[in-house]
Amino acid sequence: MQIEKYKIDELNHQASSKHERAFEYVAADVKDLESVLAKLEAFNVAIPSWALGTGGTRFGRFSGGGEPRSLEEKIEDVGAIQALNKSSNSISLHIPWDIPSNADAIKAAAAHHGLRFDAVNSNTFQDQKDQQHSFKYGSLHHVDKAVRKQAVEHNIEVIKYGVELGSNALSVWLADGSNFPGQLNFRGAFQNTLESLQEIYEALPDDWKVWVEYKPYEPNFYSTTIGDWGQSLLLANKLGPKASTLVDLGHHLPNTNIEQIVSLLLMEGKLAGFHFNDSKYGDDDLTVGSINPYQLFLIFNELVEGMDARGMTHATDIGWMIDASHNLKDPIEDLLQSVEAIKIAYAQALLVDTAALKAAQAANDAVQAQEILQAAYRTDVRSLVAEARLRAGGAINPLAAYRSLDVRGNLIKERGAKTVATGL
Amino acid sequence: MQIEKYKIDELNHQASSKHERAFEYVAADVKDLESVLAKLEAFNVAIPSWALGTGGTRFGRFSGGGEPRSLEEKIEDVGAIQALNKSSNSISLHIPWDIPSNADAIKAAAAHHGLRFDAVNSNTFQDQKDQQHSFKYGSLHHVDKAVRKQAVEHNIEVIKYGVELGSNALSVWLADGSNFPGQLNFRGAFQNTLESLQEIYEALPDDWKVWVEYKPYEPNFYSTTIGDWGQSLLLANKLGPKASTLVDLGHHLPNTNIEQIVSLLLMEGKLAGFHFNDSKYGDDDLTVGSINPYQLFLIFNELVEGMDARGMTHATDIGWMIDASHNLKDPIEDLLQSVEAIKIAYAQALLVDTAALKAAQAANDAVQAQEILQAAYRTDVRSLVAEARLRAGGAINPLAAYRSLDVRGNLIKERGAKTVATGL
Amino acid sequence: MQIEKYKIDELNHQASSKHERAFEYVAADVKDLESVLAKLEAFNVAIPSWALGTGGTRFGRFSGGGEPRSLEEKIEDVGAIQALNKSSNSISLHIPWDIPSNADAIKAAAAHHGLRFDAVNSNTFQDQKDQQHSFKYGSLHHVDKAVRKQAVEHNIEVIKYGVELGSNALSVWLADGSNFPGQLNFRGAFQNTLESLQEIYEALPDDWKVWVEYKPYEPNFYSTTIGDWGQSLLLANKLGPKASTLVDLGHHLPNTNIEQIVSLLLMEGKLAGFHFNDSKYGDDDLTVGSINPYQLFLIFNELVEGMDARGMTHATDIGWMIDASHNLKDPIEDLLQSVEAIKIAYAQALLVDTAALKAAQAANDAVQAQEILQAAYRTDVRSLVAEARLRAGGAINPLAAYRSLDVRGNLIKERGAKTVATGL
Amino acid sequence: MQIEKYKIDELNHQASSKHERAFEYVAADVKDLESVLAKLEAFNVAIPSWALGTGGTRFGRFSGGGEPRSLEEKIEDVGAIQALNKSSNSISLHIPWDIPSNADAIKAAAAHHGLRFDAVNSNTFQDQKDQQHSFKYGSLHHVDKAVRKQAVEHNIEVIKYGVELGSNALSVWLADGSNFPGQLNFRGAFQNTLESLQEIYEALPDDWKVWVEYKPYEPNFYSTTIGDWGQSLLLANKLGPKASTLVDLGHHLPNTNIEQIVSLLLMEGKLAGFHFNDSKYGDDDLTVGSINPYQLFLIFNELVEGMDARGMTHATDIGWMIDASHNLKDPIEDLLQSVEAIKIAYAQALLVDTAALKAAQAANDAVQAQEILQAAYRTDVRSLVAEARLRAGGAINPLAAYRSLDVRGNLIKERGAKTVATGL
Repeated sequence: MQIEKYKIDELNHQASSKHERAFEYVAADVKDLESVLAKLEAFNVAIPSWALGTGGTRFGRFSGGGEPRSLEEKIEDVGAIQALNKSSNSISLHIPWDIPSNADAIKAAAAHHGLRFDAVNSNTFQDQKDQQHSFKYGSLHHVDKAVRKQAVEHNIEVIKYGVELGSNALSVWLADGSNFPGQLNFRGAFQNTLESLQEIYEALPDDWKVWVEYKPYEPNFYSTTIGDWGQSLLLANKLGPKASTLVDLGHHLPNTNIEQIVSLLLMEGKLAGFHFNDSKYGDDDLTVGSINPYQLFLIFNELVEGMDARGMTHATDIGWMIDASHNLKDPIEDLLQSVEAIKIAYAQALLVDTAALKAAQAANDAVQAQEILQAAYRTDVRSLVAEARLRAGGAINPLAAYRSLDVRGNLIKERGAKTVATGL
Repeated sequence: MQIEKYKIDELNHQASSKHERAFEYVAADVKDLESVLAKLEAFNVAIPSWALGTGGTRFGRFSGGGEPRSLEEKIEDVGAIQALNKSSNSISLHIPWDIPSNADAIKAAAAHHGLRFDAVNSNTFQDQKDQQHSFKYGSLHHVDKAVRKQAVEHNIEVIKYGVELGSNALSVWLADGSNFPGQLNFRGAFQNTLESLQEIYEALPDDWKVWVEYKPYEPNFYSTTIGDWGQSLLLANKLGPKASTLVDLGHHLPNTNIEQIVSLLLMEGKLAGFHFNDSKYGDDDLTVGSINPYQLFLIFNELVEGMDARGMTHATDIGWMIDASHNLKDPIEDLLQSVEAIKIAYAQALLVDTAALKAAQAANDAVQAQEILQAAYRTDVRSLVAEARLRAGGAINPLAAYRSLDVRGNLIKERGAKTVATGL
Repeated sequence: MQIEKYKIDELNHQASSKHERAFEYVAADVKDLESVLAKLEAFNVAIPSWALGTGGTRFGRFSGGGEPRSLEEKIEDVGAIQALNKSSNSISLHIPWDIPSNADAIKAAAAHHGLRFDAVNSNTFQDQKDQQHSFKYGSLHHVDKAVRKQAVEHNIEVIKYGVELGSNALSVWLADGSNFPGQLNFRGAFQNTLESLQEIYEALPDDWKVWVEYKPYEPNFYSTTIGDWGQSLLLANKLGPKASTLVDLGHHLPNTNIEQIVSLLLMEGKLAGFHFNDSKYGDDDLTVGSINPYQLFLIFNELVEGMDARGMTHATDIGWMIDASHNLKDPIEDLLQSVEAIKIAYAQALLVDTAALKAAQAANDAVQAQEILQAAYRTDVRSLVAEARLRAGGAINPLAAYRSLDVRGNLIKERGAKTVATGL
Repeated sequence: MQIEKYKIDELNHQASSKHERAFEYVAADVKDLESVLAKLEAFNVAIPSWALGTGGTRFGRFSGGGEPRSLEEKIEDVGAIQALNKSSNSISLHIPWDIPSNADAIKAAAAHHGLRFDAVNSNTFQDQKDQQHSFKYGSLHHVDKAVRKQAVEHNIEVIKYGVELGSNALSVWLADGSNFPGQLNFRGAFQNTLESLQEIYEALPDDWKVWVEYKPYEPNFYSTTIGDWGQSLLLANKLGPKASTLVDLGHHLPNTNIEQIVSLLLMEGKLAGFHFNDSKYGDDDLTVGSINPYQLFLIFNELVEGMDARGMTHATDIGWMIDASHNLKDPIEDLLQSVEAIKIAYAQALLVDTAALKAAQAANDAVQAQEILQAAYRTDVRSLVAEARLRAGGAINPLAAYRSLDVRGNLIKERGAKTVATGL
């Protein structure tokens, strides 16, 4: 199904007076209003192909209805999201869950919805039917050269698919690690990983990047071979300028100061981008902003400040992607909430009075610094985000529109109530 | 010094047009506006006597200037806070740091500032000069009956001071615990604590309560004898109806769902009240709302809902107190920020559309439930809080007023730049 | 397959001189040697029926070979473990993964291997094919009475299966919880759970117990309705004397002092028993003793002391069960290592000089208390455990025997290399 | 006081038959026995000058008796430890707590006890009387160049003292960080720290090293400017070959895999050394090996393996130091227990069957790898450590000897019962 523009317009018309009142109220106090709106309008977050189906845990998976049965249907779903929120203009493919059988047709289908292809993702954390070697004991870090070779070749194949689709980055997340003390030689595992990544790096086209993700635990529970940002950065530095570090918000030990890591990676020119989600306990993969929205704001505060300092423009220099598991919620609703939370955090960060903050920092005035940050954070920026979206042709209230138009009901009618999308 | 009312009025006059615009905007959408404002106006948070001085860590303490040198000056400081925010009409004494030498004079001094005395706090975590037995190895849980007796007597003496001042609750926080496996018999420690608390309980006046605080670690680093809410509740149930559990926000293991504990203690009729602060790592004692304001809102959401369900009124049935350590900030500024954060969270919780939330819960609609909570949370309620304060005779912007009137500068002039208040 | 006794005897003969030298060395210093050996010989740990197959994570599952294809084959596997270690004389069934189609035949098969049936386990964390209501949003805590009823009936059915097999306890672990703030009313969820458990409690035969397990998170990631020992104990107390609290070692927030919880539950007469495993990050379900063996010893130290204080005998009063996920190891090898680690910890705890420890505690002599505990812990008790096993007819070195006899190779020959056992 | 050798000999004589029986039993199975004993004999751990007095927490400090009142008396205390355990032949000075007024006299006093001076430690986490600028808001990272300069000069002065005493390393631990979001610009703080460290680096003598310590939190509770090993390594790499990363075991977020960090720092040639202690919750500074002795063993396992791989010899290439806070125990007893725990872990690591472990790792045999590690760990090596100590002229049982000789009683007689040593 495709959401027709006139339906969105109708709903916007109904919501417009309430929206205008809110927007006018908040806009009056925004310095550089047009610049802020332009930045919000330009900001997009990629939707991963694995996020359109209901996720699960090791204890079970409770599928919803109308889940996409093919890559084409996944593109349709992202198209619906983009039609509503005008902030999700790309899709990030996971191989082999979503191998494009005909790249041109897939690109055309995406273009029809105004979509392009973001980073491609390899998978060496599962065994695929008929693969020669098992990844049970790891992939790029494996003690056996033949297994490493198989994993390297898989990554190179993923690059190939990405090239066909116009992508320009490979995102590598490794499950490689160990469950028990003694199982691994840590140095050996690191060196093997480095060697494997170097082979993949060699295969990168000139304009490509490789993003090295880290994670402290799960699915291995004693060690992970790329366990923290320090290890990822060490690898990225040894690899070269095309390699950098990807930050998944859920991949940190309890209480980690993620915003500081983001700031330092930006400083080093090694921040690849983000996998957005939220969590309370670990890699919980919950809706972005559902647990700790202030932390999300603090991260965007570092991004806005750090990218300004480097003269970076947002849309092109950093990868932004949702990475969550929608175990209970309708995946499309979850993604709409997630993108909205990200844009709210971004809008709040854009409202920070940078000059005043610098002055407070120079005076060690922690009270005032907090006031400045929280003044931006406590501002109700929802209508700013809505206005930017409205100007881009989206819905004032994407989630309400999604429900009002009964998109899920229509998808169930089209696809059935018992479909199960590929993914976790 | 005392902040004169006309100065606050002048500042309010300057701020009034901005305030009115904001208030009118947000008030238009508030159901039961007058009821919300009345609740906000009635809400007060006690200021502990130990919070008026600069705190410290085991690594050092960097005092500020103009700190109160006596209980009378501490009352003056709370008076200044109350004059500005009209939400801090009581003071919570810590004995023996602030023993009132003349109760009538102290009560009169407090009344002069519109203050009364909240819960009194005992201290068995330090040795006082000339005390017979040391609390090095604990107090109420001690293996030696004589030490327990000394600790019980101290608590009974604290009650006596409280009675003189018109307080009606004893707050007990124990540092009792162990640093090493084997040091303690856990059951013995629990039973000794219970026996000691029973003796204190017997000494409570009829209309008094005893609040049993819990904490997982620090200053002991292997076990704490009242380590979590389960242990505190076990004791409170064995003690009787006058005993209940006090929740200090910083006293939890990483990732604890505090709002669930609050909800269940309310259900059991055993929620004594709160020690408010914020933290990232442990008992960090930071400004309330400075690290995770959404969690604070979620706690207030449980409070509003749970107290309504029990027919409780806020001001009288639960103890509200700041408990923080102002290592870097001006203590009065920190307290003003903390009370403001609490009232903002409370105001947001009052805006939750309860009926809609119940409907969403009944339908397992997690998406809608989140929308409802976050709609309240994202509302900029600062002007609601300010309006309630204005009606009560306080400042629209307490912190700005404090700075504008140079209260600290005047205190330094009066008291000197090198004073050090009693406390941690 | 069945391991023939003479083969074990042969291997024991080869290992005997080395064993005897070790045993004689350590036994010389053991007070009450025969009593210690008798306790070790009498100590058994139940093997859960879901632990005989390779486990997995949400990211994938890498099956091994020769996994049991039926309950009968699972009993065979436990029989092999018991033949080797003589400490695993019971099996704990999980319904509906292992519904006994013919109870008499199953009992006979078990008896053939010297096995009986321990606690039975219900499952309301997954949907079974054709079940009327989904457990997607919980079971015993569900907002919908009809779903709760279905879950209660399932538990009652599990009791029925247990009665047929001679079991006398129902173990209840609930995945019930929420992923997002607002999704649940915590009090409502608790009250529904209590009501459901009361209905199950009513259906318990006279000599049965119900064990209430707790867990802070996973598979729900914001709240769990029975989240910690305090909540479980609250329920158990409201239910009555047949209800008590089950401790799964992996179900705790970071840094929790588990041994203190064990001690207090024993004190309250509400310790149901254990699910043993080990972990570094969360509910990692690793081999018992593989990550933090000293903590395991400290737990056994509390058990030995606390059970002595209550006059309890081990084998009958408390439930002991492995609960782990063998993602990488051969499940039988993992179970052999786990039982061995438990028995080593138990043996060490039996060596603690209790009288000296009490004296050190009475003197607040933390140095000496640590020396006493660590003297027991540092003693190499492996030969004591082996001697007890030898006397019971088991193997001196169960794991070495398992490998030497190529049990897995034979299982693969019998069952095939691509079997997948039911379970997680 | 000084412990006379003949008294130790007498006690050893009494303990010798028990020791010999134990030693002979365990030694029979040790490959390369003499090499193991030689390594144990050569292994020494520095005692910090601040560890001879009773520590405390922010809640209080309970001093013991007979604490050293001067640097000379601290040297005496370390001399007593060294006389007993022959593994503590150096002292690590903290400036300005222990400024040597006469370097030659201090060196002579140390030499008299067979002691030399290990790394010197600077202190910019407290303000000293009369210092011009305050370190309230940090030192090397400070926004104000003048404060940074003062901190740099202090470090250079510490080097000067170290040179006089024959030390050759500067250990830098910074409390620099922030308590609140917004207080700091993270990049600015990092760059200032780097610049300051470069100035200190320039002042290092040719044969000196600078050790850069990291810590995630405390005394700052939102961010630390050198917060983790990644940040420390980034600084060390930018500084040059004389700079490396110091690992304090207590300075990690919950559940951190410290042994992996140790392994990777060794791989990079950037492991400066250790501050040993143990902890359950955070930087608890408890006796080494009192909470998680298996983790300590795993760290030594990496050290033995990694240093062998680099051809390093232990005594000279890495810094080993205790860093703990003895709040409850007699400091000397705590230190004796700590050094013993370290040597036990080292001895166990030396017993690991390296060849078998490599084979198991090459086969991904996690079961066997665990068996190999735990076989070494479960071996009772106490008599090996004692034998090495005996050969070096120390006591078979240092702690028992300390008590038997009533060293503390004598110190109290000499120094008084109410002394308080400098330090935390």
